[in-house]
Amino acid sequence: MIRITTAGESHGKGLFAILEGIPAGLKLDIAEIDARLALRQSGYGRGERQKIERDRVEILSGVRNLTTLGSPIALAVWNCDYENWKEYMAPEGCDVSKRRLTKVRPGHADLAGMLKYEQNDARNVLERASARETAVRVAAGEICRRLLLALGIEIAGYVKSVGSVSDENSYTFDEILKCSSVLGMADISLEKEACRLIDGAKAAGDTLGGVAELRVRGLKSGFGSCMTYAEKLDARLCAALMSVQAIKGVEVGLGFEAARRCGSAVHDEILPSPEEGDKRVGNGPFRAFIRSTNNAGGIEGGMSNGEEIVLRAAMKPIPTLMKGLRTIDADTREPALSAPERSDVCAILACETVCEAAVAAELAKVVCERLGGDTMDELKRRYGALR
Amino acid sequence: MIRITTAGESHGKGLFAILEGIPAGLKLDIAEIDARLALRQSGYGRGERQKIERDRVEILSGVRNLTTLGSPIALAVWNCDYENWKEYMAPEGCDVSKRRLTKVRPGHADLAGMLKYEQNDARNVLERASARETAVRVAAGEICRRLLLALGIEIAGYVKSVGSVSDENSYTFDEILKCSSVLGMADISLEKEACRLIDGAKAAGDTLGGVAELRVRGLKSGFGSCMTYAEKLDARLCAALMSVQAIKGVEVGLGFEAARRCGSAVHDEILPSPEEGDKRVGNGPFRAFIRSTNNAGGIEGGMSNGEEIVLRAAMKPIPTLMKGLRTIDADTREPALSAPERSDVCAILACETVCEAAVAAELAKVVCERLGGDTMDELKRRYGALR
Amino acid sequence: MIRITTAGESHGKGLFAILEGIPAGLKLDIAEIDARLALRQSGYGRGERQKIERDRVEILSGVRNLTTLGSPIALAVWNCDYENWKEYMAPEGCDVSKRRLTKVRPGHADLAGMLKYEQNDARNVLERASARETAVRVAAGEICRRLLLALGIEIAGYVKSVGSVSDENSYTFDEILKCSSVLGMADISLEKEACRLIDGAKAAGDTLGGVAELRVRGLKSGFGSCMTYAEKLDARLCAALMSVQAIKGVEVGLGFEAARRCGSAVHDEILPSPEEGDKRVGNGPFRAFIRSTNNAGGIEGGMSNGEEIVLRAAMKPIPTLMKGLRTIDADTREPALSAPERSDVCAILACETVCEAAVAAELAKVVCERLGGDTMDELKRRYGALR
Amino acid sequence: MIRITTAGESHGKGLFAILEGIPAGLKLDIAEIDARLALRQSGYGRGERQKIERDRVEILSGVRNLTTLGSPIALAVWNCDYENWKEYMAPEGCDVSKRRLTKVRPGHADLAGMLKYEQNDARNVLERASARETAVRVAAGEICRRLLLALGIEIAGYVKSVGSVSDENSYTFDEILKCSSVLGMADISLEKEACRLIDGAKAAGDTLGGVAELRVRGLKSGFGSCMTYAEKLDARLCAALMSVQAIKGVEVGLGFEAARRCGSAVHDEILPSPEEGDKRVGNGPFRAFIRSTNNAGGIEGGMSNGEEIVLRAAMKPIPTLMKGLRTIDADTREPALSAPERSDVCAILACETVCEAAVAAELAKVVCERLGGDTMDELKRRYGALR
Repeated sequence: MIRITTAGESHGKGLFAILEGIPAGLKLDIAEIDARLALRQSGYGRGERQKIERDRVEILSGVRNLTTLGSPIALAVWNCDYENWKEYMAPEGCDVSKRRLTKVRPGHADLAGMLKYEQNDARNVLERASARETAVRVAAGEICRRLLLALGIEIAGYVKSVGSVSDENSYTFDEILKCSSVLGMADISLEKEACRLIDGAKAAGDTLGGVAELRVRGLKSGFGSCMTYAEKLDARLCAALMSVQAIKGVEVGLGFEAARRCGSAVHDEILPSPEEGDKRVGNGPFRAFIRSTNNAGGIEGGMSNGEEIVLRAAMKPIPTLMKGLRTIDADTREPALSAPERSDVCAILACETVCEAAVAAELAKVVCERLGGDTMDELKRRYGALR
Repeated sequence: MIRITTAGESHGKGLFAILEGIPAGLKLDIAEIDARLALRQSGYGRGERQKIERDRVEILSGVRNLTTLGSPIALAVWNCDYENWKEYMAPEGCDVSKRRLTKVRPGHADLAGMLKYEQNDARNVLERASARETAVRVAAGEICRRLLLALGIEIAGYVKSVGSVSDENSYTFDEILKCSSVLGMADISLEKEACRLIDGAKAAGDTLGGVAELRVRGLKSGFGSCMTYAEKLDARLCAALMSVQAIKGVEVGLGFEAARRCGSAVHDEILPSPEEGDKRVGNGPFRAFIRSTNNAGGIEGGMSNGEEIVLRAAMKPIPTLMKGLRTIDADTREPALSAPERSDVCAILACETVCEAAVAAELAKVVCERLGGDTMDELKRRYGALR
Repeated sequence: MIRITTAGESHGKGLFAILEGIPAGLKLDIAEIDARLALRQSGYGRGERQKIERDRVEILSGVRNLTTLGSPIALAVWNCDYENWKEYMAPEGCDVSKRRLTKVRPGHADLAGMLKYEQNDARNVLERASARETAVRVAAGEICRRLLLALGIEIAGYVKSVGSVSDENSYTFDEILKCSSVLGMADISLEKEACRLIDGAKAAGDTLGGVAELRVRGLKSGFGSCMTYAEKLDARLCAALMSVQAIKGVEVGLGFEAARRCGSAVHDEILPSPEEGDKRVGNGPFRAFIRSTNNAGGIEGGMSNGEEIVLRAAMKPIPTLMKGLRTIDADTREPALSAPERSDVCAILACETVCEAAVAAELAKVVCERLGGDTMDELKRRYGALR
Repeated sequence: MIRITTAGESHGKGLFAILEGIPAGLKLDIAEIDARLALRQSGYGRGERQKIERDRVEILSGVRNLTTLGSPIALAVWNCDYENWKEYMAPEGCDVSKRRLTKVRPGHADLAGMLKYEQNDARNVLERASARETAVRVAAGEICRRLLLALGIEIAGYVKSVGSVSDENSYTFDEILKCSSVLGMADISLEKEACRLIDGAKAAGDTLGGVAELRVRGLKSGFGSCMTYAEKLDARLCAALMSVQAIKGVEVGLGFEAARRCGSAVHDEILPSPEEGDKRVGNGPFRAFIRSTNNAGGIEGGMSNGEEIVLRAAMKPIPTLMKGLRTIDADTREPALSAPERSDVCAILACETVCEAAVAAELAKVVCERLGGDTMDELKRRYGALR
């Protein structure tokens, strides 16, 4: 069973993950993983921290000569900046009286975390709660994506909106694959507008969020479950997305729009497909069909239906504003301005990258549960045998 | 650890659940559970099936003299209609050549399920995939709600929109508690409009969905996790909601609106609270604070922050339309019209009821993981001791 | 994923289970399950309670016309005796001041359970802790055995010892399959001796335990894991056995004897097999081999190695003695004699039956995790394709 | 929830673990962990590999200034020997044609693993299956032991037998704590005998196993479950022990001996305790009692009963014999002698150390599930409040 366990603090030694359940025989490409890590650090509107860290993955175990062994894969993304923080962060002993953060930042885990863990320094909370944790999730997710790719399952995504600038067009999977702009948007003129919005927010000491759209192509029908509610594909993928820092909403297919329309404008009719009209396999139903639309986003009854999976995730603006937010100081009990710990204005492209990794990880889990198997060859044979 | 396992088919003997991990000493009220079951069957726009079944819960185990024992609680909601279906559905032997459904219904599990389970009769899939499964989830969820209530944690919800009729007002928790109208909306004039919309859809042989808003009051801060992404409160609650049949989108707090605004219009500033200004406990941070707003919907950094939890779920229109949808017949391979298996026009109030149960179940799980304990008294002591 | 969840009290309405993850298309035979339930109630040395209950399984869901649907299978073994206990046990309301048990019985859950669940009546604990719970585990286990059988994997077992009467012979799988004596022993003369021992214990108001040996035949190699310690086949099967009431020790293969011998007398050498000398498949190792011995009991490195699985479980004597055991009365704080709640002298054959069910359940789980799949046909194809 | 995930290969970069769920505020002592690691490498009869590696733990995350943060704790035990193996083992690229092992070793994972993972080099299996994996389990287990110690729960163990030399005496917990001999036995004259046995086995190119006994003191009653079979304390602890490499049998209390005795010679009678006769708390039962014996090994009905936990684990002899074992060569299909990969004659003290770690880890898990909580102070308060 695929399972990802992560560890690591933002200014600690690094970020770490153990990825269990990847079958033996998957070929990895470290440069590809590093490219994803770079993407996670990029995007118009990012701040200085991203220049300090040039994330690279180190594979610690589970892989020999770039091929998985079937054993747990341990990954590290070392924090280059640790040298400067060692004095305040070292597990082995350090000065915890420095670098304290007591002006608890709205929108972050600071205050709830201090209460929960009985801490008087929000650093002891924020170091782990930081979205820097996603660096190693991206690395692990990229390995999962490789696994899916070996089966012909592809994931793509793009930035659908930045703040109020929203792209209402539809794009094919191939069009999305081609997005490689500074913000990850598909429409360049809208992206320019979005960049201007970011510039404005930056000038105002403010921040922006946005919406990412994710797609999965090549997933056969029947993944997920209509029998056990906790195993529904939509529930699992949405939990994965919602577990990404800053996500406040998720949608499948039409999403909230489906609630506004009447049924005949929502459900995807099933039509016979002329080309495949004669094929029929075993005891099962008619296979030669096409869908008029894909409003369901590829999921019906908690299972993939063979169409593209369409997901959207809404990211709130980064909660650390250069102009500060009103808060209190946990030490003095006095009103205070929250201090900027990092200074991205907009990280929607990074978020989109993380969302892809989160989807890849959860989907690989779902796929491997249904296929079982210990080697990539076995997985391929079994996936190929599915209708 | 609280865990709910459900079973049962729509026209089988009944719906069943085993609810594990409820501490000893919780007093139950069967009438209250039955009232929830009735609510799940009510709502303007419901069809004939709801008149056939008058759901009542039977407690099979885990409870003695209306008090939980700490042992697994088995629940049954028997299908009154089983007598009429026995001949076609009995586990012990029956005629499976009758009541076949081969005109696979768009929007349902029918087609993907037939392929997955190698069936030539969609009945073998739809009987379990049916939303009737939620009857027993509501019963189990109601027990979880009792547990939460014993700790002072309340759940409420209302219908925010029906199709295009949307209520943009905000309501206090107490105002929501008072909703008891035919559609579960808070604004009676809007509800009238919604009823007319339903009438229109009915006349057209069409269906409608809507949006439910859920609230949790009295949940202390620190539930969920900022340390392990799979344990984030928002991820868990949203998965619970998304696992409810027909849900296509979920939001926390501002949700998608958060992605449109700039950061200073999203994050909930923290202000000192005059009344409690002198209280401070142990090593932890300043406690006397209030929030200017609750755009976060009570969750920051994957944890409850002490404010009300605010969630929204979008329900798609019921996929069985009286006027039918184009599809194919799995037997003949010919184009066909999908046959109505049930005939609700709008089930948003039922859906809202189920969403409350789903939230109650997941939240009770989260709460009990943090509190541990074997008896309700122990839970109450521990919850009381939390800041 | 296969998962069994049980519920039910000894004198409540019945025992219940939900069995998830059984693929679609498994044919069930209710008479076969009932035969197992009868076996669980049989054996020389059993008492009166077994005559009160004639256990039969009722399938509540997940099965249509004796064929599994892939949906959760709910099972009930109704307690015939409930009618007589309703007054004291009904979930809906009853008189809990009757049938109290306060003379806490050594060897049972009574005392620890009363403290844990803050009860002043051990009945609130013992009703669930009772080995009667295993009735429904046997029913569920029998379904798992059917699944395994469909793949050619067989489970058998026999009683190896009763108290001090121990059978030191070895038996082939087929010899074990033939055991159908009153105590489940393979050597009839030893069994006679064991019966006399039971008679003596009965006369003395005492009780006896014994050892059961379990075997699995037809399991291909590679089930379990050498990569993740919690997934080791031996760890999982032993936990399953140890979870059976009254088991105090478990062994694989030579078990404790392996610790006494030197290595050259323990490890099973690998020899070429003349018949299959030319077969070789793909990239993998030489396949034509035989083992000189099976001291490992079919498990090496946490995985099945293709030989028969050999397990033993030691059952302690039943802790309810007709002559009583010294204890205290939880009400009066006075010394007391523990009161007999039931009166079996020896239940080793029942225990052996339960152990088979426990092994079947865990093994089916392990098998399905590796094979994945949604239908029995798919499982058979995948199992057949394994080397 | 406490969870340990391990990774790492025997000649790879190191062994790694992520330990989740340790509350905030636990003080660690790295020297203490390293002392355990040294113990795991020690013991009369160990070979050369143990001199190559001088294991030390490195804490990678989850700890600041020697105090846990509540975040996942990543641990590394780096392999000093990796420098010499890099060329053949590096994840990033290496020469896999060297250091192949094809003479599959009986008693190891080699053969089953090669078939399962479709490998033609047993190295790709044995590197992970190796007992070297336990180094990091010991490190993680030591952290769990610290947690337990903070609650007053102690674990101790000793070597009860080496091959045929068995110590039949009983020892108090304090006597066991004092064991610090070369083999970890409690009786020095028996230990001398055991050393001679080891010398003999070494001379003969053979190996030896043994039995370790584990004890837990200070565990209050009610840990584990009498309500859900998979949560029984005995089942969980025995699975933990059985998951340790080379363990073939486990016992609780009297273990297999209980199956030989009659009930009156097994069950631990409950007697009033004179000193505490007047204390009684709340609604629960009489508390002032003592046990005549501890044959149950501290577990009744799947729960701790307040007495010392007594466990025994049987270790088979190490399967790598200097004199070799007959096997086949996977390449040539010819008969062969298995090649020694390492050369310990007896590793029972190491095994005992690992067993303590395995018990500590599982017990900490059980304890934290019942107590919940986020900080050590909270755990202590809750544990203190238990009866």
